[in-house]
Amino acid sequence: MQELVVATRNKGKLKEIKQMLHKRGLEIEVRGLEEFPSIGEVPEPGETFEENAIFKARFVAQRLGRIVLSDDSGLEVDALNGRPGVYSARFSGEGATDERNNAKLLEMLRSVPPHKRGAQFRCVMVLYSPEGDYVLTQGIWRGRIATEPSGDGGFGYDPIFIDEEKGMTAASMDMETKNRRSHRGRALLKISTLMENFFAMVQKG
Amino acid sequence: MQELVVATRNKGKLKEIKQMLHKRGLEIEVRGLEEFPSIGEVPEPGETFEENAIFKARFVAQRLGRIVLSDDSGLEVDALNGRPGVYSARFSGEGATDERNNAKLLEMLRSVPPHKRGAQFRCVMVLYSPEGDYVLTQGIWRGRIATEPSGDGGFGYDPIFIDEEKGMTAASMDMETKNRRSHRGRALLKISTLMENFFAMVQKG
Repeated sequence: MQELVVATRNKGKLKEIKQMLHKRGLEIEVRGLEEFPSIGEVPEPGETFEENAIFKARFVAQRLGRIVLSDDSGLEVDALNGRPGVYSARFSGEGATDERNNAKLLEMLRSVPPHKRGAQFRCVMVLYSPEGDYVLTQGIWRGRIATEPSGDGGFGYDPIFIDEEKGMTAASMDMETKNRRSHRGRALLKISTLMENFFAMVQKG
Repeated sequence: MQELVVATRNKGKLKEIKQMLHKRGLEIEVRGLEEFPSIGEVPEPGETFEENAIFKARFVAQRLGRIVLSDDSGLEVDALNGRPGVYSARFSGEGATDERNNAKLLEMLRSVPPHKRGAQFRCVMVLYSPEGDYVLTQGIWRGRIATEPSGDGGFGYDPIFIDEEKGMTAASMDMETKNRRSHRGRALLKISTLMENFFAMVQKG
């Protein structure tokens, strides 16, 4: 069976990706970075999602000599000119947690009225071979920032991101609904349509 | 029929790419930049083949709203620590021509003995959608720099680049042989295995 290493230690992200690939019927064994302790901390030195996703995938692919999937994603808030963007996970500074990031964002938007609370999750996903060939896809999920958290699924900013059409936060959706609508789901759906041919291409050399 | 815009005004390159895609049996109409005069000069602002190939493809894809193929390629000479690299086409400065570039390189290597004249052509090829999804592949052609030009096919450094196995310069090969062995041929062969699925992916959105 083909093996795919996902360049993440985020268990929520790994679980989402595994579920989506299996639902697509791809016979691929998905392994997270926790299975490869020799890979230390993976840096995210870029200023864009694209740079970070490519950097992470290349970093792991070159060290392991395997095909690697990475993503870099975050929340872009209209009223903050696209921030926190690539700094989404580190938004509340040293020792940032999901809770603190959400609290900081809600506080910054406290006086912003509902019709100006537009935001989007953006995901850049990269499938990378040790030889330096790769595929990059993007996914966007438009929505709005809530005034308080709700829902206990998902991770990151999910509790305060409202999907307008469904009228609920990302954290309130079951995983299947979320994966069908989310930025990561869309980027992964696209990349998955090229995955089998990508594996074949790499094996042929 | 699918349409593919190749981000080049180089007729030699366009002809090679057309021939290779048709030989692969891909039913794609290939169009060069000369058919789109609204696209002015396409900048190559990068310091790597990768940056330039992505930049060119994005530049054209965003302006035309079409799927674009670009390549950036050049010659990396061992004795010159990989130069001229991304500056291959501009190696002899203002008003550079293939002849001047070849003459300059031969002059610089005048005292370098045969066993130290190793070099490689490198090609980075990018298939880019207007939405920002893309595929990137690489191809390398190892060889050696001749002491004088020979052959009248090809373009660029082909007259002074010797394919060791064939014992002749790239400019002395028929196009089919060259395309089977060259850096561009290898990168294009790889990218072509993903091309049909890429078009389908873009059309599904």
